[in-house]
Amino acid sequence: MDQQVKANGNCSGRVVEGPTNPMVTPLLTDLYQFTMAYAYWKANKHQERAVFDLYFRKNPFGGEYTVFAGLEECIRLIANFKFTEDEISFIRESLPGSCEDGFFDYLRGLDCSEVEVYSIAEGSVVFPKVPLLRIEGPIAVAQLLETPLVNLVNYASLVATNAARHRFVAGKSKMLLEFGLRRAQGPDGGISASKYCYLGGFDATSNVAAGRLFGIPLRGTHSHAFVSSYMSPDEIIDKSLRSADGSSSCEDLVSLAQTWLSKIQWSSSLRGIFGETNQSELAAFTSYALAFPISFLALVDTYDVMRSGIPNFCAVALALNDLGYKAVGIRLDSGDLAYLSCEARKFFRAIEKEFGVPGFGKMSITASNDLNEETLDALNKQGHEVDAYGIGTYLVTCYAQAALGCVFKLVEINNQPRIKLSEDVSKVSIPCKKRSYRLYGREGYPLVDIMTGENEPSPKVGERILCRHPFNESKRAYVVPQQVEELLKCYWPGSSDKPREDLPPLKDIRDRCIKQLEIMRPDHMRRLNPTPYKVSVSAKLYDFIHFLWLNEAPVGELQ
Amino acid sequence: MDQQVKANGNCSGRVVEGPTNPMVTPLLTDLYQFTMAYAYWKANKHQERAVFDLYFRKNPFGGEYTVFAGLEECIRLIANFKFTEDEISFIRESLPGSCEDGFFDYLRGLDCSEVEVYSIAEGSVVFPKVPLLRIEGPIAVAQLLETPLVNLVNYASLVATNAARHRFVAGKSKMLLEFGLRRAQGPDGGISASKYCYLGGFDATSNVAAGRLFGIPLRGTHSHAFVSSYMSPDEIIDKSLRSADGSSSCEDLVSLAQTWLSKIQWSSSLRGIFGETNQSELAAFTSYALAFPISFLALVDTYDVMRSGIPNFCAVALALNDLGYKAVGIRLDSGDLAYLSCEARKFFRAIEKEFGVPGFGKMSITASNDLNEETLDALNKQGHEVDAYGIGTYLVTCYAQAALGCVFKLVEINNQPRIKLSEDVSKVSIPCKKRSYRLYGREGYPLVDIMTGENEPSPKVGERILCRHPFNESKRAYVVPQQVEELLKCYWPGSSDKPREDLPPLKDIRDRCIKQLEIMRPDHMRRLNPTPYKVSVSAKLYDFIHFLWLNEAPVGELQ
Repeated sequence: MDQQVKANGNCSGRVVEGPTNPMVTPLLTDLYQFTMAYAYWKANKHQERAVFDLYFRKNPFGGEYTVFAGLEECIRLIANFKFTEDEISFIRESLPGSCEDGFFDYLRGLDCSEVEVYSIAEGSVVFPKVPLLRIEGPIAVAQLLETPLVNLVNYASLVATNAARHRFVAGKSKMLLEFGLRRAQGPDGGISASKYCYLGGFDATSNVAAGRLFGIPLRGTHSHAFVSSYMSPDEIIDKSLRSADGSSSCEDLVSLAQTWLSKIQWSSSLRGIFGETNQSELAAFTSYALAFPISFLALVDTYDVMRSGIPNFCAVALALNDLGYKAVGIRLDSGDLAYLSCEARKFFRAIEKEFGVPGFGKMSITASNDLNEETLDALNKQGHEVDAYGIGTYLVTCYAQAALGCVFKLVEINNQPRIKLSEDVSKVSIPCKKRSYRLYGREGYPLVDIMTGENEPSPKVGERILCRHPFNESKRAYVVPQQVEELLKCYWPGSSDKPREDLPPLKDIRDRCIKQLEIMRPDHMRRLNPTPYKVSVSAKLYDFIHFLWLNEAPVGELQ
Repeated sequence: MDQQVKANGNCSGRVVEGPTNPMVTPLLTDLYQFTMAYAYWKANKHQERAVFDLYFRKNPFGGEYTVFAGLEECIRLIANFKFTEDEISFIRESLPGSCEDGFFDYLRGLDCSEVEVYSIAEGSVVFPKVPLLRIEGPIAVAQLLETPLVNLVNYASLVATNAARHRFVAGKSKMLLEFGLRRAQGPDGGISASKYCYLGGFDATSNVAAGRLFGIPLRGTHSHAFVSSYMSPDEIIDKSLRSADGSSSCEDLVSLAQTWLSKIQWSSSLRGIFGETNQSELAAFTSYALAFPISFLALVDTYDVMRSGIPNFCAVALALNDLGYKAVGIRLDSGDLAYLSCEARKFFRAIEKEFGVPGFGKMSITASNDLNEETLDALNKQGHEVDAYGIGTYLVTCYAQAALGCVFKLVEINNQPRIKLSEDVSKVSIPCKKRSYRLYGREGYPLVDIMTGENEPSPKVGERILCRHPFNESKRAYVVPQQVEELLKCYWPGSSDKPREDLPPLKDIRDRCIKQLEIMRPDHMRRLNPTPYKVSVSAKLYDFIHFLWLNEAPVGELQ
């Protein structure tokens, strides 16, 4: 791949960096966007002003809400949208030889300065049919943007929603760690997952590259291989450890841990729980503690959790305690996590009592091993003592539903509204350049989202407004909003002089997401049979949709 | 992200380029690989020679085979594995402040010159438990490689297998097009999908970036938005088209198409099938034909397939025919694809007959719209006239099973075999540095894969050998192989002088894959209740596994 050399996108005097993944270029699109661009250009139609809505039709995971994510990467692409000569040569090779040279000159000069992008704020809770982004601009360039924008929003929103759902089941007090890199769909499936899981409410990731790119807190200790790489405690050469306050030194942490192990073995309250523990595991734990005395957290299921891992861990933790260090805790990566976490907790409490080590009973317990929404829910129902969850495969691949169906539909061209018909009503698009509002009720909950024509007066606080289902004539309701929030804001004004919204830092987007999820009415959020949130259109827009529909649909002839 | 500046990896005098995705760096790994590396370094254990196997435990999609992919990207990472100063600074920030400076000097000098990588050839058909890659090297660096290697193999193999399964159902004669970019899991979810779907037997992609990176044939025409962007044929200004042989010119293709449309409307055999067609659709088709007269393919379901799309398409195709151009065909993107394809075929044949246009009945029909293995199978059962499939979401996100569970297990350290135990027998690892062979039977089919210890004599053609199930003592069989293929070859010899396998071009890997799938015994390949392919160990390795297992497992005490 030749090096992309690009000027940073500049708009309203502010610079927008390029996409996080250098593979996101104007070529990251479907070939038909170029064949269409050529056909538009050939028909001299390429500069016609079009309006596209980007939206999805159905919330994922059987839920009734979605977290919107991916906006910043969209704007980064748009701000830096420019073809290199090499890219233009490749497009020329990929189109029939009959294509005229003028088209490639046109591509050479193309950027997004004539494009305007309106969007809901990233990290917002969003619903089907309501545009997440509205793209206005010359039709040829707007079409070229379709594929990358849909790509950048689809997975980002899907995985952020998945993270938010995991947070909802786990509860606010638990630590949620994203551990999915190795099972993600490719390298930036992993990197995007780390970013958008954090956005959706996770606390940290194991992914070092993502930590660096996005400032996400990093977590990780050791694996089973680390444990099985040790044969016996004799392997450890330098066994000495200075005490936490530096005042003294232990010459042989291995012996100290072994002494503690036999004390535990012969203690009255713990007697008989285990026989001989695995000595290579004890060696591995001791070695890890020597490297990280201030943050000792051990994976305890390489051989046998209760008969080996927990006693070995406690022996090393007690040895560290003698030197003024406080061990962090354990990780369980297999077996019955509810049962094992409770047994481990009992063991820790017994140690606290037996040996008078304050706080030992509160040792942190992390669980991993193929966790998902269902297993978290099952753990809650069984009762458990887990403090932190490490979640991988099911979270990052969105195993329960691996795709969100965002689409990008033409709603207006040359100020003429356009509709896309379908025999499936749910696939009929809502025409017109629109505005969208979220209306809040007396109790502070969002009640309904409403779309109106661009030039309709906006809903007013305290004024009754009729909200209609866009396609079902019998579904309508009056609402008197206590608060009205306009959803689409300008994030890319092109060369217009409209004020432009800032792209907030990831931390702020995450805060917004958490806050937005909190103010939703609980029945929309529950896992079992959630109530659909209402999405509506104004009476005027309703009438117009149905006028246009009748106008466009061919009249059948029964024979 | 600061720019990665890297020397191309050089080994055995040949240069290996860096990873296709510049985000694949040595930081694309889990934090615990660095904490472990530090602990190994601190214990002076980091240079101990370890052997890791990378393998999966279960074939995906309820099938009994997997296509192995991702090797080239693994070797590209390994060949160019080197930390930048910025990366080292970030690792230092991410580890506790107590970590000693010497460790970062160690990282500074680290590369994969002491690592050896053995692998099955990319594009091979592979089975559970048999190592896809064997990584030998200093334990610290081998561990750092775990996460990216597993990441690079997991999705690649999963999506290649998915593609192969789609090819199997579609049959050899159909054209398979990958259209998944917009729904893929992130930008290189899309790019990787295009690459590995091609490897697994697809013919082309819509993804321009992937076409450029990997030389995959590109396909695409136009979307619904293109059709609905036209209001009426009056919009078309330049209506002239020169004939295919350049000998004449048609001044008004719009009128010619409209003339054909009324001829079709009033033809005796087609009479009454449709009334008035959508004129904006006719305008869009004509405009597209003016741009691409030699490759006219139209999406016919924007308004109504049989009442508008097909007659409009035929009118334009017949106008092109008058000028010596042969239209390519249609695409159907909604509705009952079996029924519509048959109706369209009938219509094309009727046109061929009525107007004497040879070959018109054979017009190509492409189907898209949420296709997957099941819908292809259902289409086959119903009977259809589809020539090409465009497949997106279900293919690229591997919707039916979004992850393959590749793992990376320590099997030997310092020449000592290691085993990872688990209460779940399917998760117990097969210890030792091993060799693997595929044994072929009299009819040319692969019969069984067998793993042996490294120093055991290899199976010989015509010599009887006992193949044992690794964990089930009653499952064993004698085999007299007619052909013996050693599976693991050296793809990265490090600084050893072993000969190194070439990384073949993608086209060759694809050919290998197609060939390998063809020689499998059909009962392993069928969709319903396929027969598991046998994976075995030698008698000697079997005995050793079970000796080690008993040795490592703690003895319980019943109370």
